Amino acid sequence: MLRYFLFLSLSLITSVAFADPLPSWNDTDSKVRIISFVESVTDPMSDDYVTPSDRIAVFDNDGTLWGEQPVYFQLIYAVEAFQKKAQDDDFGAITSDALKAAVAGDYAALAEGGKEAVIEVLGATHSGLSVDDFQTSVTDWVATATHPITGLRYDQMTYQPMVELLRYLRDEGFKTYIVSGGGIHFMRVFAEFAYGIPTEQVIGTYTETSYEVIDGVPTIIKQPAIGFVDDKEGKPINIDRIIGKRPIIAGGNSDGDYAMIEWTTAGDGPRLGLIVHHTDGEREVAYACDSHIGRLCDGLEKGPDLGWLIVDMAKDWSRIYTGAQ
Amino acid sequence: MLRYFLFLSLSLITSVAFADPLPSWNDTDSKVRIISFVESVTDPMSDDYVTPSDRIAVFDNDGTLWGEQPVYFQLIYAVEAFQKKAQDDDFGAITSDALKAAVAGDYAALAEGGKEAVIEVLGATHSGLSVDDFQTSVTDWVATATHPITGLRYDQMTYQPMVELLRYLRDEGFKTYIVSGGGIHFMRVFAEFAYGIPTEQVIGTYTETSYEVIDGVPTIIKQPAIGFVDDKEGKPINIDRIIGKRPIIAGGNSDGDYAMIEWTTAGDGPRLGLIVHHTDGEREVAYACDSHIGRLCDGLEKGPDLGWLIVDMAKDWSRIYTGAQ
Repeated sequence: MLRYFLFLSLSLITSVAFADPLPSWNDTDSKVRIISFVESVTDPMSDDYVTPSDRIAVFDNDGTLWGEQPVYFQLIYAVEAFQKKAQDDDFGAITSDALKAAVAGDYAALAEGGKEAVIEVLGATHSGLSVDDFQTSVTDWVATATHPITGLRYDQMTYQPMVELLRYLRDEGFKTYIVSGGGIHFMRVFAEFAYGIPTEQVIGTYTETSYEVIDGVPTIIKQPAIGFVDDKEGKPINIDRIIGKRPIIAGGNSDGDYAMIEWTTAGDGPRLGLIVHHTDGEREVAYACDSHIGRLCDGLEKGPDLGWLIVDMAKDWSRIYTGAQ
Repeated sequence: MLRYFLFLSLSLITSVAFADPLPSWNDTDSKVRIISFVESVTDPMSDDYVTPSDRIAVFDNDGTLWGEQPVYFQLIYAVEAFQKKAQDDDFGAITSDALKAAVAGDYAALAEGGKEAVIEVLGATHSGLSVDDFQTSVTDWVATATHPITGLRYDQMTYQPMVELLRYLRDEGFKTYIVSGGGIHFMRVFAEFAYGIPTEQVIGTYTETSYEVIDGVPTIIKQPAIGFVDDKEGKPINIDRIIGKRPIIAGGNSDGDYAMIEWTTAGDGPRLGLIVHHTDGEREVAYACDSHIGRLCDGLEKGPDLGWLIVDMAKDWSRIYTGAQ
């Protein structure tokens, strides 16, 4: 028994002395606040101790765990998947402006078409096929497609500091979740290998699906109708619906995450709300309240008074992407 | 190191020799099949080995993990909660037949009113309040209410053999889920202490909810509209939506579970479909295809040919309820 305790104490000392759980975070206040929060809720002697089953941490994906500029990566997938589809000899004439823009890879024209245009392109690639076939298509895309500006594969455009944060939280007994406006079937393809987050901890937007036995094979088919938009108030609603308890950590980067962080931090006991503020125009893109994507006004304005941690990417992160120094 | 291996081997031998993981299961074929399935998917040397992250087991609740006769326990909660509510001096006149039947505790009259009457009583007690207040009410009820026939508390009417099965599966690296037609906010109150299943592994029917900041307090409110009915085809749809992978074990007791078991067992590799057949008229209630609750026709007719295990409660279980010998 004594031997066991000696071993345990030794390994604790070792890990405390040598391991920095967040090596890509600079030694600024943000890092200090995160580590001190985690230490206080995991220390059984602390008044702020939280039992492991209540250590739920939720994070937005686009702009929080990976990039989202110049357009959501899922839209790039949709455009490229549609281009591939349209190359088929059997494919009929393309008459709609939105689909023409997709074939031309003209994102400006797509943006002009507004939400309807985007939904049309998403619909053309995200419905009328089985979940299995859809995910095979996304798997192929993630393995090869590269970003128009960075030249990186999309799974290399995850944020190294956030990947470290997710791992650190899990090491400290947290269950880490994605709660994103992105599509569940899309995100689940890479969530496990990119973030270490299993499919059952990926919450997001979804299309309606149907259960059909086709030639004797039970199949889940993606339908055109949108079932649930996991954004704004939809985020706390979906967390209650799926996780069934209030998280103690919530992180996001846009006002679409405001309600989720608000609900999380309003709970009793210790809570950490975190906003990734895109301040780094050199290594990434600097944007906030004026952006057409990841618009962040309320969070910046009210977050600090609510005690939320505003992460300054330029100042707090020594490295941005997992795939590049 | 050698010492460690010796210790490990010794403890393995001990556990194999002494521990029966399913003590309330008689030594019949059902028990043999369950244990042999679990051993084959957890043995790294077996061709049927399944990696822990894919060891997903889903179970219906009513009639599978606890009783459901003479009426669903959640309806009994609703009736008793409405009776309590109606005692309030402020409560207005009750004019509808369904609510009158509820106040009188007249389940026969409620049944005559059909689905609409049941939904009215559920609606009167399951909406227009916060999730927190609803769950406080259910918590109080579960702690004190007793079943009209057995006299047991409802959490004592969980099936001991199934509670053992859930624990056995978790000990063998499975994630155990409830996938039930019952309401999520209702079931989550007792799922953890009754079954060892955390809230995030409880999937079920839900009402719509809204996110509202009331007097500065962010609150989730239960709305009257039904959001999703987790029954029949809804079960595999919800499993895909929430878990995101196909289970390898699915258990149920009625045709409402047919699609879930069908989808589960149609997957590649080893799969176990299981149906609890209520054959024990002495210790419980014997019912199947003719029952108004937990109707089981297709499962009994086609299940055996599909390789599903039909559990014969009278023959396979030495004990029924956790709360009584």
